[in-house]
Amino acid sequence: MNAEPLRVNGKRLRKSLESMARIGATPGGGVSRLALSEEDREARILFIQWLREIDLEVTIDEMGNIFGKRSGRNSDLAPVMSGSHVDSQPMGGRFDGILGVMGMLEVLRTLHEHRVETRRPLVIVDWTNEEGSRFSPAMMGSGVWAGILDRQWAYSRMDLGGKQFGDELERIGFKGTSPCRKWPVHAYFELHIEQGPLLEREKRILGSPEGIVGILWADAYIQGKANQVGPTPMEGRNDALCAAAEMILRVNELPGKMGGNLVATVGEIQNYPNSRNIIPEKVRFTLDIRSWDDDLIRRAWEEVKRDFQKVSRRRGCPIRLEEIWRVEHAPFAPHLVQIVRETGSQLGLEAFSMVSGAGHDASYMNQIAPTAMIFVPSIGGRSHAEAENSSWEDCEAGANVLLKCLLETANTL
Amino acid sequence: MNAEPLRVNGKRLRKSLESMARIGATPGGGVSRLALSEEDREARILFIQWLREIDLEVTIDEMGNIFGKRSGRNSDLAPVMSGSHVDSQPMGGRFDGILGVMGMLEVLRTLHEHRVETRRPLVIVDWTNEEGSRFSPAMMGSGVWAGILDRQWAYSRMDLGGKQFGDELERIGFKGTSPCRKWPVHAYFELHIEQGPLLEREKRILGSPEGIVGILWADAYIQGKANQVGPTPMEGRNDALCAAAEMILRVNELPGKMGGNLVATVGEIQNYPNSRNIIPEKVRFTLDIRSWDDDLIRRAWEEVKRDFQKVSRRRGCPIRLEEIWRVEHAPFAPHLVQIVRETGSQLGLEAFSMVSGAGHDASYMNQIAPTAMIFVPSIGGRSHAEAENSSWEDCEAGANVLLKCLLETANTL
Repeated sequence: MNAEPLRVNGKRLRKSLESMARIGATPGGGVSRLALSEEDREARILFIQWLREIDLEVTIDEMGNIFGKRSGRNSDLAPVMSGSHVDSQPMGGRFDGILGVMGMLEVLRTLHEHRVETRRPLVIVDWTNEEGSRFSPAMMGSGVWAGILDRQWAYSRMDLGGKQFGDELERIGFKGTSPCRKWPVHAYFELHIEQGPLLEREKRILGSPEGIVGILWADAYIQGKANQVGPTPMEGRNDALCAAAEMILRVNELPGKMGGNLVATVGEIQNYPNSRNIIPEKVRFTLDIRSWDDDLIRRAWEEVKRDFQKVSRRRGCPIRLEEIWRVEHAPFAPHLVQIVRETGSQLGLEAFSMVSGAGHDASYMNQIAPTAMIFVPSIGGRSHAEAENSSWEDCEAGANVLLKCLLETANTL
Repeated sequence: MNAEPLRVNGKRLRKSLESMARIGATPGGGVSRLALSEEDREARILFIQWLREIDLEVTIDEMGNIFGKRSGRNSDLAPVMSGSHVDSQPMGGRFDGILGVMGMLEVLRTLHEHRVETRRPLVIVDWTNEEGSRFSPAMMGSGVWAGILDRQWAYSRMDLGGKQFGDELERIGFKGTSPCRKWPVHAYFELHIEQGPLLEREKRILGSPEGIVGILWADAYIQGKANQVGPTPMEGRNDALCAAAEMILRVNELPGKMGGNLVATVGEIQNYPNSRNIIPEKVRFTLDIRSWDDDLIRRAWEEVKRDFQKVSRRRGCPIRLEEIWRVEHAPFAPHLVQIVRETGSQLGLEAFSMVSGAGHDASYMNQIAPTAMIFVPSIGGRSHAEAENSSWEDCEAGANVLLKCLLETANTL
């Protein structure tokens, strides 16, 4: 190692990100690389090829999670791990997830190139189905690996076309033989775009989240009564879409009503039979509530359920609610968060302290190993959209923070 | 003709309706016989076979409208016409449309069986694509025939799968050669289920509509901004679904706000990208406003457009509105309405005076010939749903009213 401080190769990182962005590229400049799709398969194959080029030991587990291991001086020690996911939203961006995987790859390439050894082994990981948009819930690969989700249950999850997760995993050739079961991890870091507007607003390049907010997912099913729109008087109608519209607005008002830091969103709706001249008979919509304060989520959910019942009774449209996922807020390991902040200072980047509003594989990792995340800015705060963007310089800065955090944690901690 | 008063054969009418209900039967007891589908084709073939069995002269015009003519003693006189449509809603019922066609068929079978001659010729008709749910707008066959819609424009209308009306008409073998152009009609009657709750509520078997309400159809396109639901604060969001929800409720409140007799409905909605953890970026929804008072429709439309603009501005979600169809209210020919009422009295059925809230082929016929309709009750007021139902006795009673109205009009008027 020479006297120059070790830095990642920003151009090479950009090239990797651009190569990945071509797989599932959308006309509007985003990517569509749904979990276990052809595009996911293609990205995985390229990723593994790159791992092998720098002599990593590649394993694929029963959930399709891909690991690449680089030996340390003492291979008996628990490794330091970093990564994220290569899958994307249906019309997603070119940075969400993939930055964390390509960032760690660039760190490992840099170490390989400069023949830098570490005391502990290093592991790069691509977690299967982080997005959860094709197969819900999200963060499935890391959830099963961490022992929090059941593997057989995960296999049985179905997409809207009726295809099962397990079958699709096999179809794309990524149902590995290595057990999907946690092993000791000394520290887990995940580099990610912020997916929000705060860093840009604060004019900071580095975000160091204290942890990840709690998340509640639920589905609402409303039953109305179909009828011809013309001859059916307004009184006596049971219009499922009107009931849903009121409920959607109650969800939107929930954060203001509860006080405290909370977001609540309806992102998805289906209306049946969805015909211009038929009064809507059935509506399904989704509900997403997030906060750092688990109790606030609980109280908001109770509150909105009461609102829903009132609307349901008044409109004569029975409602069925299904709570499908709940994770508590997850504070990261304070000593790792501290390392991110100090590393930033050393690189001249003053870290902005925040929480992550998005769920990440780091949520599950945080339950079984000391974990921290490294955020870089999202231009205009946009994410889960084709317009998602980050500057190449910020991506490079984030990867350099990751590099230093890994060296610190793998060598001296 | 013997001394017994002439009556239709209720059992035979039921059998015809049941045969038709098997074509496109749905699991819930309804039918799905979309315009120009395989099911529509099958129903048309059976219908034509039945027309030929009673020696009618069958012609098919360029829009696929099917006519069956029975000679009169004086074939120079303009005929009396009756019919409706054999197509249905996607999950429609077993009576809407088909009752008017099978009712007239039963009348003609009865006349044939008893060798009853009429002074004027009689014509039975099946109008193409009355429902408009696959190819909008509705009432296309009668609209072109009456000279109100353009035939080439109708041919170019597309379904959601991108198939053109003209191509599909040809594919099912029903693009006839006879010109689709009106000829003199002495009177047009249409027997139909009420599709509303009034007759049942009033305990009447016969409804005699004064005419058909005016109808306005429009589409709304709302533009929001997609973003990850977690890290995006509530303030500053442009949630297209929340904007749509407010607008849907404004539409629902419109009748109460405007006073007067008006119905307003949003039946159809599409949300993009429709993903649980993405703030909705685009929403399209449909709007249907109906009233006997055309000016009230106009004022309601202006009012709700103002409401939409307010919501659009407040939520920062630009809106585009497209008015796609407007028909004025159509009062029927008073002397024919009177004949329906008198005929009812003679049969012991006191007619309930009302207006039709649904559009019918009779709307267009009313613009070119004296027209009236005959309504029978819908059980529970249900229509455009699998649960649509009417009693066989009421169907028979309606057909008997039609029989007497036709004889009266074709012989003495």
